This record gives sequence, structure tokens and C-alpha cells, in this order.
Amino acid sequence: MQLISATVPILATATETADSSMVLAAVLLSLVVIYFASKVGGELCNKVGLPSVLGELLGGVVIGVSVLHLLVFPEGGTDASNSLIMSFLQLTAGLTPEATPAVFAAQSEVVSVLSELGVIILLFEIGLESNLKDLMAVGVQAVVVATVGVVVPFAAGTVGLMTIFGISAIPAIFAGAALTATSIGITSKVLSELGKLNSKEGQIILGAAVIDDVLGIIVLAVVASLAKDGAVDVGNVIYLIVSASAFLIGAIVFGNVFNKSFVAIADKLKTRGELVIPAFIFAFMMAYLASIIHLEAILGAFAAGLVLEETDKRKELQKQVIPIADMLVPVFFVAVGAKTDLGVLNPAIPTNQEALIMATFLITVAIIGKVVTGLTVFGQPGINRLAIGVGMIPRGEVGLVFAGVGAASGVLSKPLGAAIIMMVIITTFIAPPLLRFVFPESNTATNLDNNSGTTLAVETPQSLITTKDD
Amino acid sequence: MQLISATVPILATATETADSSMVLAAVLLSLVVIYFASKVGGELCNKVGLPSVLGELLGGVVIGVSVLHLLVFPEGGTDASNSLIMSFLQLTAGLTPEATPAVFAAQSEVVSVLSELGVIILLFEIGLESNLKDLMAVGVQAVVVATVGVVVPFAAGTVGLMTIFGISAIPAIFAGAALTATSIGITSKVLSELGKLNSKEGQIILGAAVIDDVLGIIVLAVVASLAKDGAVDVGNVIYLIVSASAFLIGAIVFGNVFNKSFVAIADKLKTRGELVIPAFIFAFMMAYLASIIHLEAILGAFAAGLVLEETDKRKELQKQVIPIADMLVPVFFVAVGAKTDLGVLNPAIPTNQEALIMATFLITVAIIGKVVTGLTVFGQPGINRLAIGVGMIPRGEVGLVFAGVGAASGVLSKPLGAAIIMMVIITTFIAPPLLRFVFPESNTATNLDNNSGTTLAVETPQSLITTKDD
Repeated sequence: MQLISATVPILATATETADSSMVLAAVLLSLVVIYFASKVGGELCNKVGLPSVLGELLGGVVIGVSVLHLLVFPEGGTDASNSLIMSFLQLTAGLTPEATPAVFAAQSEVVSVLSELGVIILLFEIGLESNLKDLMAVGVQAVVVATVGVVVPFAAGTVGLMTIFGISAIPAIFAGAALTATSIGITSKVLSELGKLNSKEGQIILGAAVIDDVLGIIVLAVVASLAKDGAVDVGNVIYLIVSASAFLIGAIVFGNVFNKSFVAIADKLKTRGELVIPAFIFAFMMAYLASIIHLEAILGAFAAGLVLEETDKRKELQKQVIPIADMLVPVFFVAVGAKTDLGVLNPAIPTNQEALIMATFLITVAIIGKVVTGLTVFGQPGINRLAIGVGMIPRGEVGLVFAGVGAASGVLSKPLGAAIIMMVIITTFIAPPLLRFVFPESNTATNLDNNSGTTLAVETPQSLITTKDD
Repeated sequence: MQLISATVPILATATETADSSMVLAAVLLSLVVIYFASKVGGELCNKVGLPSVLGELLGGVVIGVSVLHLLVFPEGGTDASNSLIMSFLQLTAGLTPEATPAVFAAQSEVVSVLSELGVIILLFEIGLESNLKDLMAVGVQAVVVATVGVVVPFAAGTVGLMTIFGISAIPAIFAGAALTATSIGITSKVLSELGKLNSKEGQIILGAAVIDDVLGIIVLAVVASLAKDGAVDVGNVIYLIVSASAFLIGAIVFGNVFNKSFVAIADKLKTRGELVIPAFIFAFMMAYLASIIHLEAILGAFAAGLVLEETDKRKELQKQVIPIADMLVPVFFVAVGAKTDLGVLNPAIPTNQEALIMATFLITVAIIGKVVTGLTVFGQPGINRLAIGVGMIPRGEVGLVFAGVGAASGVLSKPLGAAIIMMVIITTFIAPPLLRFVFPESNTATNLDNNSGTTLAVETPQSLITTKDD
């Protein structure tokens, strides 16, 4: 780290190529590669009628650790010598081999934080597009869907692994727990792309995904303490339940008060950023609060979005958040793809063969266990139950956290660990196209939503022409 | 760094508080503090009729190394124990003292890169608002202003230090070189705030600041090689001149070709970010190119903005870049303020007394040496010559680079080093209010520009009410 915190901090200079300028060059190059992958992947998927977020994930896979090694991260066990971006910097920018590890570490750190800011902005935007009252109206259904979606895959997965595969209790419970996750990021982004976020189905899925996230954190705490010393840390579990409930209820109650002060403040400000800056102060503060009480930062951002949706600044704020989200959200999805190591799916590797069999079982449980949740929706005649179940399928980044904690705890055998990761990968990549197909009338909705993504442009003549091309 | 690249990378979990979640929490908290400082400072300055960017700089000073120690950077010699944000994280988020240095280093790295992305976006936006033909029309004047603004302060500073203060040649030349810089970031932002960017004066200042940046890099290369081995590395200087010229001319020539493909590509894209993402791919690639040929990254972004300004996507792109700039640009100005150590101005410290006398001389030369450049403008009857000279005064981040290289080379005595930093601070902070006063009719212009900053909103009813408040 000494190399990075050099004395000449701010800009590249002719003679002293401070490492900070190398870090900036590496980040700029990473962003170019990320944006290129996201647009190529997203547009290709869109062309064949699939959600563009799938394309961004796949674009990430192509540039990531599985294929091109352009964008790799140290946590995958890869080091700077495996990063093509670092090799390129050595070739073009005179980066020395000695300075490379520090620059690689800093670049990975910065890109990771940018991707986390991306998913925070995404959930803030989703919050801004959702309506608290609509969410509350389907609250009971969402709770049921989330609970069933946690209990069924957990029970089926754990029991199945113990009885069919003869796995002992603790690792089986861990794998079962990993089956409970739902990726709120992927689900909400696909819903938004399909123009289904504000449908009844969308609201139930979104609400259930939020509750699932909270339940998942509690499940993970229980399982991890079980794995650690064979007993459940009851105090910690109670703390998590109380703080999560307090946070969500507090956000709703205080939100009504904060609403008015936010509008009053934004109205008084006269300099640029008079709307986004107060909004981001609030969103980032909520994300910080959520993360320090061991919830996920994205839940805080989602709550902040929900609160600000209640104000009459909503429309204006939505418009301004769109380009910011367009800039940062792809970094998240491409990074998730880039971190996905498809090597675990390679049947030529001996441990993977055993893993593949277990993975087949886990994937079956993962899909069926969530699809049945849709059947539990009651009192909503004519609702698309299949869509609700499918919407809960992707495990995404949340599933990876379970897999990571499992690997770190050492209770998982290598094949079982690989099987969990396979399950996470398959459910993540299968959900966007499945969702697209279970919402049959989604073709027009997609186009509508694409237009709303470029609302900014509708007033100008050239964009009217562009819109016609759709 | 090992601690940072932990195995559980993506999200905060209940039991394993991976360091990456601490880094995210630290960055979120830093952004909240930065945004708060930028808005309080910016609004207060705006209220008393000063450019809001001065307020952002001052807000940065308040939260930075000089006063509150909320946002500090390792390059200032401070470590994690001096960062109030780290103490706060220890208090609220359970950050352990052992993990703190790594989190502090990562947070500083991320905030620094965000601030550099901020100034890149700023210059991209300035490029989008400028017109290449207008710039070329005043090209000769800009070259003259830049050249005089380099030669006069350099000669006066060097000779004055040698004759009046008896300083030997090499350090005097170094200090003289530091006097040549112009901060394109601060100057362009103030001009934009005053609504003067597209005035003839604004175009001359902007053009001269760009040329000054290139000249400054060459001067720095010459001086640094002088300081290193007493001789000038002619090869390096020729390389810099050739590559800088090739880059600027290449950008203009190829820009015309790229223009058309950019519009064609943006028209074909159907998924979100169809305009900003291709634009940022281009801007970041240009910034990368500029930085690897040892120019500044911001010059690349400025050139990219100029090229895209020629397309008919300009208006749409400008609108979408505004909120992104609103989010990232304040990070730059607040960080510059936070890194400014006002301790060098404290006359109670013995070395500072000698430094203060030298600083008074340097500041006088710095201001007069740039103000006279305005007098050299010819063939432009009725032009505000004083404004042009004043616009070249702020040394800003470019001056800090000179000071940093000087300090690193070891040729500067402690008082002379402190005097250079004082000169940079004073010229940076004095320029925005001075510019405001030498553009007398700027009051209406400020309001107009404030409105254009919220163009996005003009269509919605509530913002019409907001606008009326102005």
C-alpha cells in the first residue's frame, strides 16, 4: 500500500508517474471494458428477446475469470499476473512489474466499490419506482411467498442431501440455507426491464425478495454459528431480528416526517445538484445504517427510494437518477458475471463429476422450491402464480455470499461447495429468460419500459426518430 | 491488502463482517460527509454572491486535514488514527483497530479515484458545452495568453527569488515553474457557473488553460530532469511535445470521423444507457490515452466532449451528463479542499515566517504574472482583458502537482516548499470570487446558468414553481 499512497497524489505528471495515476488508468480501462461488455451483451440479448441484464451478466462472464481474464478480482484466487488489463498497462503505460500487485489490488478495490455503488443506486431507483402503499397492500402475500420460499427449499435441500447423498447434518443444513436466497438485484432489474415492476405480481415478488433478504441474513447467521461451534447464537439471532424489524418500520414511520423536510430543503437549494445531492445524502446514510446493523446496504437504499417516492419531487428525481444508474448499474452486473468461475461446471475435473450430480439435485430443488411459492398466493384472482414463483428463482450475489461463507467456514466438502456455486450460477442465469417467458404479454411492456428509460429524450426531435425505430 | 481481498466479497453478512463491507461503509460515510460539506459550502457562497465551487473547496477544507479531520488522505502524512471517519466506524460498525489501516487505505484510494472521475466528468461536460470552432476562432489569442502566462510568472518568479532572496538557481527555477500552472478544473467550473463559458473571454481562458496545461507538463518535465541530474532530458521533452501535439490534432481530425459512427451506434442501441455508455466508452478511452502519453487524463475527456459536441446528440447527452456530474464533481472539489493543509499558513511555526515573506512575493508574481496576460489579447475590441487575466490565476490541483514533485525531488528548502503551497492555496481560493467581480454583469448570467443546470426539470410543474423562487 505504501506505493499507492505516494506523495504526488492528484494528477499524472511527466516525470514522476505516481502510482495513483496508474490506478486511475487501470480503472478507466476497466470501465471501458465493462461498458463494452455490458452493451454488446445487453444489446444481443435484447435482440433475441431476452432481458438485457442477462446479456450484461454474460458479457461479464466473457471478460472475466472464466474466459478472457480482462477483469479479474483477487478474491477469485487470481493475482495480478492473470489480469490482462495489468499486462496491457505494462505494455502501454510503462507499469513496472514491481508496482503491478499494488495497482491491481487498488483497481479491484475501486471497481468492487463502484459495482456495490451500482447495486445501491439500482435499489434506490427501484424504490423510487415502487409505491409503499402498493407494497403494503400485497404485504401478507409477500410474507407468505418469502416464508414458503425459505422453508421449502431449505427443508427439501437439507433432507435430500442427508438421505439421498448421505451428507452429514451441518454441511447439508448449510447447502439448504444457500437455497433460501433470492437476488433482489437481478429480480428487480428484470422486472423493471419487462415493465412489470408495478404489476401486482411484480410488487409481490419485490416485497417477498426484500423479506427474503432479511430472512436470508438471519438464516445465514444461524447456520454460520451452527457451523462454527455446533450451537446457535440465540442472542445474535434476536439482535438481527429486532434490528431488521426496527430498521424497516423506522424507515416507514420516519420516512413520512423526512419526506416533508426533504422537499423543503430541495426547494431552498439554488446550486447545481439541488435534488440528487440531498437524495444521495439520505440514500447513502440509510445504506450505511443498514450495513452497520448487519443488514445489506441495498436494503437501506431501497427504503430511501421508497420514502422519496412519496414526495412530489419523485418524477424529477427519477429522471435525474436514470443516467446515474445507467452509468453505475452495469458495473455491478458485469462484475458479478466476471467473478463467476464457469470452471466449476467443467466435467473433465474429477471432483466436478460428483459435484454435478449434487448440483443437478440442488438446482431442481432450487427451482421447484421457489416455483411452488407462487401457488401459495391467495385472494388474488387472475394473478400469474407461475411468474411469482419464477421471480424468486435467481440466487445471484446473495447466493454467492452463502457459498463464500460456507467455503470460509470449512464445513463444506469440495464437491458440495462446487455444487452450491453451480446452483447459484444456473439459477441466476436461467431466471431472466424464464421470467421473460412467463410474462407472455411482455413484448410491448419491454418497449414501453425502454422508452421510459429514455424519457429524458422524448422532448427532442432526434430522439423521436430514434423512438420510432423501436 | 490481504485483509481487503477476503473470500466473501460482495455483501455484508451477519457473521463474517468481511472487510469489503467495511470499505463500502467507509466510502458511503465519506460520500455523505463530502456531499454535506459541498452543499453547505456551495449554498452559503452562492447566497453571498460567490461561485459555489469556492464553497465546495472551503467545505472540503473544513472537513479535511486542516480542521475536522473527517476526510483525510494518507498522502498528507496522516494515518488511519487521524481519520474521524475511521474512529466513527470503530464506534458504530465494530471496525477493529487491526483492520483499520487497510480499510483506511482502501477508502482513501476509492475516494481519490472517485474525485478523479469527478474532474474527468467535469472536463467532459465542459467539452460538451464548448464549441471547437469558437475555440479555434480565438486560438491565436489563447496561444498568446497561455505563452505569456507561462513566460512572465516563470521569469519574474525565478529572477526575483534569485536576486531578492538569494536562492540558488535550481530551486528558484522550480518555484518559477510552479507559478506557470493554471487549474483548468477550477477556472472552467467558475466560468460555467457564471454563465460565461461561451463568452469570447471564456473561450480564450478555456483555450489558454488547455494550452497552459500542456505547456505546464513540458515545463515540469524540463524542471524535474534539471533538478534530478542538472541537465535537461531533451529526448523526453521532444517526446512530450510531439505526443501532446499529435494527441490534440488527432482528436480533432479523427473526431470528425468518429462523430458519425457515434451517432450511428447510439441510434442503433435499444437498451438503457444507449447514449451515456457509448459516450463514456469514448471519453474514458481518450482519458486513458491522454494519461498513458503522460498528458493529463482530463485533457482526453475534454477532447472527447469537444468531439461529441459536434454531433446532434449533444443536447440529449448534455442533459444526461448533468446529474452524473452533479454526483461526482463535488467529490473532486471537496477532496482538493480536504487535502489542503492550512497549517502552512500558521505564522506561529518558525519556518513559516520566512515562508510567508517568500509566499507574499510568489503570490504577487502569481497574480500579476497572469493578469498581464489579458493585456496581450489583440484584435478583440471591447473584450474584458482583466477577466481573461484573472481567469488564469488559480493554480489548483496542477499547482499542487508541481509542489508535490518539488517536495519529492528534495531540491526545495522547507520554507520555499511551504511558500509554493501557500501560493497555490491563495491563488486557488481567491480566483473564484475575483472572477465573479471582474464579470460585472454576471448576476443575471448566474441565474440563467443555474436554470440550465436544472433544465431537466423545466417540463414538470413543480420545478416551474421552484424556478420562480429564483
